[in-house]
Amino acid sequence: MKIYLAGPDVFLPDAHEIGRQKVAICARFGLTGLYPLDNKIDVTAADASRQIFCGNEAMMDEADAIIANLTPFRGAGADPGTVYELGYMAGRGKFCLAYSNDPAVYADRVGRFIDVTSENGRLVDAQGLTVEDFGLVDNLMMIHALELHGCPLVTPAQMPVDVWHDLAAFEACVRMAAARLIAT
Amino acid sequence: MKIYLAGPDVFLPDAHEIGRQKVAICARFGLTGLYPLDNKIDVTAADASRQIFCGNEAMMDEADAIIANLTPFRGAGADPGTVYELGYMAGRGKFCLAYSNDPAVYADRVGRFIDVTSENGRLVDAQGLTVEDFGLVDNLMMIHALELHGCPLVTPAQMPVDVWHDLAAFEACVRMAAARLIAT
Repeated sequence: MKIYLAGPDVFLPDAHEIGRQKVAICARFGLTGLYPLDNKIDVTAADASRQIFCGNEAMMDEADAIIANLTPFRGAGADPGTVYELGYMAGRGKFCLAYSNDPAVYADRVGRFIDVTSENGRLVDAQGLTVEDFGLVDNLMMIHALELHGCPLVTPAQMPVDVWHDLAAFEACVRMAAARLIAT
Repeated sequence: MKIYLAGPDVFLPDAHEIGRQKVAICARFGLTGLYPLDNKIDVTAADASRQIFCGNEAMMDEADAIIANLTPFRGAGADPGTVYELGYMAGRGKFCLAYSNDPAVYADRVGRFIDVTSENGRLVDAQGLTVEDFGLVDNLMMIHALELHGCPLVTPAQMPVDVWHDLAAFEACVRMAAARLIAT
């Protein structure tokens, strides 16, 4: 069984090493991890970004499931590139898992970045746009997609010191994927 | 032909009015716009967020295409909930269109929000994470998904004064959708 390993991990300085560790954890549970940076891309080519897209899409089409890293990325919410991939896999009917190393509620987290006020019973930002306030960790589309197309989002009890390198929540996803995908 | 109207428009104070305008533009081009807020949801129910998800997913499954509003939302990139929906529709093999009312290149836009530096030939943020720098308007997954599963992202020549209410780029998407979906 093959698992597509989505996440902003590819933007880390040690992106290749994190991928190697994730693939190794998958292997311990009898699963094959597919990591985007294992695609061979000529990053100097004029169409490098399109090569990356096509490589990632081919990996997703090959995979039986996705484990997405939804840890907040440069702001209050998950990395949109990773979220696109989670949506794509849900649309393809693949088994969807994800984790976030920040267990805070989304509405509280937004308040760390910008001013949030209460207006006629709803939370709003400075532009007057509603701040989603359902007590969920991120946007309801991702949270309920996971519940209904795979397993609920995994979060640690407390944010780890190193949110980009702590793989405990990732490993919990791999364990659930193995239990669901290898048993069937 | 039915078009799912995705975007953070649903978070605007006049979310219903924007939806009405978008549906009216679709109708002018012979298309049926499906707007998330037209789902009947009991927002006071304990499972309101799940009802919203299920309503949105049913609308997407019913639609032939999506027009996603990828205008940057509380940060440098598109709204993750909208991006999830774009990915889902791509995965379902639906026709994908989108617009962003901010035509700036992603790497430049990130620099408006946080410090970006150059390190060994790559742009990085304060945490050392790479800032994607392919000259694209947002993350490559969305940009190339649109090219390959529908129409390229539509952006205005200049950011309109009111990014949340200017519907010229949206109307350009509707025109392209009509040309592609009604002709076939």
